[in-house]
Amino acid sequence: MEFPSKLIENAVGELAKLPGIGRKTALRLTLHLLKAETEATSSLAEALAKMRFEITYCQTCHNISDTEECSICANKLRDHSLVCVVSDIRDVIAIENTGQYQGVYHVLGGVISPIEGIGPSDLHIDSLLKRIPDSEIKEIILAISPTMEGDTTAFFLSRKLREFPEVHISTIARGIPMGGELEYADEITLGRSIVERTRQAKA
Amino acid sequence: MEFPSKLIENAVGELAKLPGIGRKTALRLTLHLLKAETEATSSLAEALAKMRFEITYCQTCHNISDTEECSICANKLRDHSLVCVVSDIRDVIAIENTGQYQGVYHVLGGVISPIEGIGPSDLHIDSLLKRIPDSEIKEIILAISPTMEGDTTAFFLSRKLREFPEVHISTIARGIPMGGELEYADEITLGRSIVERTRQAKA
Repeated sequence: MEFPSKLIENAVGELAKLPGIGRKTALRLTLHLLKAETEATSSLAEALAKMRFEITYCQTCHNISDTEECSICANKLRDHSLVCVVSDIRDVIAIENTGQYQGVYHVLGGVISPIEGIGPSDLHIDSLLKRIPDSEIKEIILAISPTMEGDTTAFFLSRKLREFPEVHISTIARGIPMGGELEYADEITLGRSIVERTRQAKA
Repeated sequence: MEFPSKLIENAVGELAKLPGIGRKTALRLTLHLLKAETEATSSLAEALAKMRFEITYCQTCHNISDTEECSICANKLRDHSLVCVVSDIRDVIAIENTGQYQGVYHVLGGVISPIEGIGPSDLHIDSLLKRIPDSEIKEIILAISPTMEGDTTAFFLSRKLREFPEVHISTIARGIPMGGELEYADEITLGRSIVERTRQAKA
């Protein structure tokens, strides 16, 4: 695609670097910004730059935060004896949106992936281990996606956490998702959902 | 969706204002930028702002241009007696990419749309009419999308262009697109494609 202006070409090129945005979409977005008020572009550019350069992370749980301690860690009403370990900030947002969890978090910042060159030392594992002594932590929930890398990370973590026999380790339940059909579930999930069946309370 | 940081929330909010980008996609893009090098964000923000604030339009055809006269209008090798009228810069890019057109353009900057409050005076129609006298223009091609608003605009233009009986008016051919199936074509298109059939040269 040839563009009549270098400025357009640069903008399209930069937008097309974003995941899931191709050159056609990038051009559509660029022309949309061109047609809109100039403020739309300046506030977008400013919000992105501000977000990237001024963002800070919680010193305790490595969640995104505008302050040194994130709003979840700072909340005295939450259960600080329960720590949910997730790989990504997205997972914190997803779990928070369920409204079902009252504990605190620990964000690893990724999963162990030899292919991408990410080892345990690249993740916030040490800071998790340092968090435990002299704390009120009683249970650690490993809420890591059940992929190859996720399972490796969870396995590595549970080995490391053996140092602390007083802390219970749990993982999120696996099973058939809501609305899922039994016949389309994979065998491992279906098998585990039978083994780890939930007893119904008697009426 | 609740976010742990106002900065994230702003960035997501601004990205989600773009067409076709919802809050989930906006969050994905934001977290992608957060994980990438800071330069990725600064060059994106800079390219967008630069594009929006430094862009200029060709004084003759209203195409996007980095200079006062766009590269198409400035090109002496192109046929300046043939003007293709389009509604949008996107159309110029699309026609240029076919490599089939050697004339010049005139970008209206939209179509007449009473619902959106766009009247003839909001488009670059006057400047088209001013371009014709004392010029070498022999033919004007109306290459406007055959929508309700597009047809209205084309009709309005062809009425206005009656002032210049020496200039031929033409429209782009309507017909069955390449790879299109006859049975799925709408009746108007199929009807016109039969009436305006092209004779094959005899072998």
